[in-house]
Amino acid sequence: MIILNGGSSSGKSGIVRCLQAVLPDPWLAFGCDSFVDAVPARMRESDGGIVFAADGGVSVGADFRALEAAWMDGVAAMARAGARIIIDDVFLGGVASRQRWQKAVGDLAVLWVGIRCEGAVAAGREVARGDRIQGMAASQAEVVHEGVSYDLEVDTTHSESLLCAQAIAAHVI
Amino acid sequence: MIILNGGSSSGKSGIVRCLQAVLPDPWLAFGCDSFVDAVPARMRESDGGIVFAADGGVSVGADFRALEAAWMDGVAAMARAGARIIIDDVFLGGVASRQRWQKAVGDLAVLWVGIRCEGAVAAGREVARGDRIQGMAASQAEVVHEGVSYDLEVDTTHSESLLCAQAIAAHVI
Amino acid sequence: MIILNGGSSSGKSGIVRCLQAVLPDPWLAFGCDSFVDAVPARMRESDGGIVFAADGGVSVGADFRALEAAWMDGVAAMARAGARIIIDDVFLGGVASRQRWQKAVGDLAVLWVGIRCEGAVAAGREVARGDRIQGMAASQAEVVHEGVSYDLEVDTTHSESLLCAQAIAAHVI
Amino acid sequence: MIILNGGSSSGKSGIVRCLQAVLPDPWLAFGCDSFVDAVPARMRESDGGIVFAADGGVSVGADFRALEAAWMDGVAAMARAGARIIIDDVFLGGVASRQRWQKAVGDLAVLWVGIRCEGAVAAGREVARGDRIQGMAASQAEVVHEGVSYDLEVDTTHSESLLCAQAIAAHVI
Repeated sequence: MIILNGGSSSGKSGIVRCLQAVLPDPWLAFGCDSFVDAVPARMRESDGGIVFAADGGVSVGADFRALEAAWMDGVAAMARAGARIIIDDVFLGGVASRQRWQKAVGDLAVLWVGIRCEGAVAAGREVARGDRIQGMAASQAEVVHEGVSYDLEVDTTHSESLLCAQAIAAHVI
Repeated sequence: MIILNGGSSSGKSGIVRCLQAVLPDPWLAFGCDSFVDAVPARMRESDGGIVFAADGGVSVGADFRALEAAWMDGVAAMARAGARIIIDDVFLGGVASRQRWQKAVGDLAVLWVGIRCEGAVAAGREVARGDRIQGMAASQAEVVHEGVSYDLEVDTTHSESLLCAQAIAAHVI
Repeated sequence: MIILNGGSSSGKSGIVRCLQAVLPDPWLAFGCDSFVDAVPARMRESDGGIVFAADGGVSVGADFRALEAAWMDGVAAMARAGARIIIDDVFLGGVASRQRWQKAVGDLAVLWVGIRCEGAVAAGREVARGDRIQGMAASQAEVVHEGVSYDLEVDTTHSESLLCAQAIAAHVI
Repeated sequence: MIILNGGSSSGKSGIVRCLQAVLPDPWLAFGCDSFVDAVPARMRESDGGIVFAADGGVSVGADFRALEAAWMDGVAAMARAGARIIIDDVFLGGVASRQRWQKAVGDLAVLWVGIRCEGAVAAGREVARGDRIQGMAASQAEVVHEGVSYDLEVDTTHSESLLCAQAIAAHVI
C-alpha cells in the first residue's frame, strides 16, 4: 500500500492519477473523497457526520469515525487479498489519523508519503479549482503534517504532479 | 449487506441514494461505478481491463477480474467490521456474477435485490441522462437477471426510485 | 426557440437531452444551470448574486439580474444569427420571469413549454438525484407556473422524458 | 471582453476562475467547453460535428462551425448589452480561429491573451487530470499560437494560475 497525506489542494489527486499511470502494475486508488461520497448525504452536514464550515474548517463526528474505521479495515483487507492500493487522505488529526491507518493496516507493507504544498500556493490553487470552500487549503497546509513521520515527502509547490509521482514510484518498484 | 443488481439506466443509483435517506442507520454505498473509478485510467479501454464498445457492449479482462475479487473481499470485510453496506452492481455474467459476490460475502447476512426496468424505458432514460453510451441499457436489461434469484425484486418501469427504496427498506428494518 | 419552464427536479434537463436527440436539426441547449456556472463563484451565495438557502429557497439580487438580462439578449442574438436554441429555466418570478424572456426574444418565433411534475414526486426525485438542496423541488413545483401561459404543457409525473420530448418535437417539425 | 487562447491542459480554466475572483466587477465566463456541452450529444463524434480522435486530435465539421458562428455572435451581443465576458478557447485553426472571433466582436474592446505552457508540462498535467484523451495537450501546445498576436501572453509552465490572472487583470482595471 501507498498512503499519501496532504492538505486540501496540495495536489494529492493529481499525484494519484500519475502514480496509476507510471506504476507498471495496476493499483486501485481510494481516498477520503471517495469515502465521503459513500456515506449518506445527510451525514455531510450533520453533528455525527462530517461538517464543512464556511471558513474552510472541517469537523468529524463519532458516527463518521465508526464507519471510517470499518472502511479502513476493508481497504486493508483488499490489500491482503492481493490488490495494490493507493490511499490519499487528509490527516486532520495529524498523528492520531496516522495511527488509525496504522491500526487497520497492521503488518502490511506501507509506503507513507507526505504531500506538502506551501499554504499560499495551495490557497491560490483552491481559487483556480473553484469547487472547494475557500480557506480549507490554508487551514490544512501545516496541521495535517504535525508530528507525522514519512518514508518520503514530496512538495508540489514548485514540482509538477508527474515528477512527484515518479519520485514516489521509484520507492515502490 | 444489501446487494442490488440491474442493467445500466435501470435506476440503481437513485434507489441507493433513496435507501441511504430512508434507512434510519447510516449505510455506506459502493458499486461498480465507484470500483471502475478506482482502477487505473489505462485499464478502461485495455484488453486486460474493461472495454466499453461503441454499441453499448461491455467486456472485462482477467486483470480487472483479479482486482475486482480483492475489492469484493475488502467490501465484505467492511461489513464484518460493523459497517452496513449497500452495493449496486451490473451482473454482466448473470449467475456467475452473483457467485463471485457469494464467495466474498460468505455467511454475512445479505438481502439480494433485483432492479428491473423494461429495456425500451431504460433506453429512453439513457438518452435523457446523456452521459452513457447508447445501447448499454437495452443490451443489459434482460441478460443481467438471467438465472439469478433474489430475496426481492422491484421494477422502476412504472415506479419511482423512492417507492422502490421504501419497499426494499421494509425488508431490512 | 423553445423555452421550457419547470421547477427543480421536474425533469427539464432530461427532456432537453431527449429533444436534442429526436429533433432532426441540431439545437443548442442553454439554461439557468449553465448561466449560474458562468457567473463568478462569489456571486453564488452573495447578496447581489444568487443565494440557495438551506430550506430550498432561492433568492436573486440586482447584480445577478443585470448579468442575466445581458445573457438573455445574447441568447436571443444567437437565434437571430441562425442557431436553433432550447432554453430550460425556472421562472421563480412566474409571469415576471416570462416577461424578461419575452423582452429579450422580441419577435422571434418561440414555443413556450410548461414542464409540470407533482411536488411530491419531484421531491422524491430530488432525493434520488442527491445533488440538490432538499426542499427546492417542493417549493418550486407550483409557484413557477403561476399565471404563466404556454403553447404546450407536459407532465413528467407519469410520463417518461423521451415521450414528453416527442410531444414537444411534434410542435416544432 | 477578454479572450484567452491556449492548448488543452495549458491552464485556461484555472486562470478564468482566478480572473473572476480577482476582478472587482462580475465577469461572465464562457468557452469552448461550455459550447461543446450545448451541442447535441450526437454532434460529438459525428462527421459534421466535433470528433476527438484516440490520439488526441480534434476535427470539426461544417455543422459545428455554423452553430459556433451563431454562438460567437450571441456572446458578442451579451457584451454589447453590458456584460463583461471572459472567453477561453482553443484556436485549433490558429489565425483563422482568431479571425472568427474578430468578425463576431467587431469594434468591441477586447484584450487578447495567449496562455502558453510547454508541451511536456501540459502533457504531464493531462495525466494528472485524468479526464482528457492523452495526446491533446502535446498536439495543441504550439499549433494554437501559430501566427496569432496578443495584447498579453502568460506562461503557466512555471507560474501559478492566480499569478497569471493577476497579470491579466492588471491590463483590465
